Amino acid sequence: MSGDPSKAEAKTGSWVRAGDGTGDRTIEENWLFRLRKERFRSRQSGKEHDFYVIHLADAVHVVAITPEDEVLVVRQFRAGSGRDSLEIPGGLVDPGEDPREAGARELAEETGYTGDPPELLSTVWSNPSLVTSRIHTVVIRNARRTVDPDPDENEELVVDRVPAAELPAMIVGGKIDHALVVAGLLWWLGTRTPGILPGPSGARTS
Amino acid sequence: MSGDPSKAEAKTGSWVRAGDGTGDRTIEENWLFRLRKERFRSRQSGKEHDFYVIHLADAVHVVAITPEDEVLVVRQFRAGSGRDSLEIPGGLVDPGEDPREAGARELAEETGYTGDPPELLSTVWSNPSLVTSRIHTVVIRNARRTVDPDPDENEELVVDRVPAAELPAMIVGGKIDHALVVAGLLWWLGTRTPGILPGPSGARTS
Repeated sequence: MSGDPSKAEAKTGSWVRAGDGTGDRTIEENWLFRLRKERFRSRQSGKEHDFYVIHLADAVHVVAITPEDEVLVVRQFRAGSGRDSLEIPGGLVDPGEDPREAGARELAEETGYTGDPPELLSTVWSNPSLVTSRIHTVVIRNARRTVDPDPDENEELVVDRVPAAELPAMIVGGKIDHALVVAGLLWWLGTRTPGILPGPSGARTS
Repeated sequence: MSGDPSKAEAKTGSWVRAGDGTGDRTIEENWLFRLRKERFRSRQSGKEHDFYVIHLADAVHVVAITPEDEVLVVRQFRAGSGRDSLEIPGGLVDPGEDPREAGARELAEETGYTGDPPELLSTVWSNPSLVTSRIHTVVIRNARRTVDPDPDENEELVVDRVPAAELPAMIVGGKIDHALVVAGLLWWLGTRTPGILPGPSGARTS
């Protein structure tokens, strides 16, 4: 596990991996994630404790803006919520892939839109208590329909465009209610309002 | 599963549960979550597909504001990221518990602070593609240290207070990088800036 960047940072935490990993156990491993029980040791108390860890690839979401200041959205079924979810385009980052490239790729595959070179807006941990995945949000301006969409099998996507000015009301009204999408959109909206947040040019590149 | 609210909404989606559930399989069940493979059927194509679903309790995060306009933060180890994480107080909502009560309870347990009656700011799905959990953010004003903290075993928390005005820079600078915390704090900051987002009084009660 020494090649795993999420674990390479463990030395900065209050807990460190316990021993040689023989206390760990893989519970499930499939194409999407690896569920493990991993043993850590508190540097404070010396006590050891098992934590569940879901190893899942990083993901990217795309704020794709048309010349008319509309933002692309996709509606699709989500099994966790058991219903359709209105989101911005996105997907998993392939191994070794730059999140900006991944964003442009997912945007084209899901919607057929391409645009200006992607800018990295933000990178956060999706749920660091349980999951290794980070989520990047990238911004692609001047998005236009230029290619044919090529969604994954079982991706039944409905693509739509929403005026950017309507996004705050859609979030507060619960029409957009995927936390990772909300985090990215609120961040982006914050950069559009002077004095709230610095824009993508100031984003961390971590 | 008919009593599960996340599944009760399935009829609104493009996919519905397939058959009588005999295609489902429970992979892991423990005190924290239940990992299942569940079969759904597309209403569009009629095709059936298995999705991984992690049944996890809802959670709550608390924006606790002191009379000095500081916000309470806690630093704690997170096994998914393998390092310490700076967050706002919070935890899992007990079965049947109101998210506002859960927020006040977690705030007191983790920090020893209590305050005004909690207001519900937002409710979103934490990661609806995989997890059934929703995350509530509540606001507690006039927070003051009034009781002794009573953290769970293995919770090694460092409690601190941050001027609210410093939060945007901490988020953009990556000091606060837990997506669900970022979503809640950006939402709350949006309500403090006239014209960005309506405040807690206008929040959905879902």
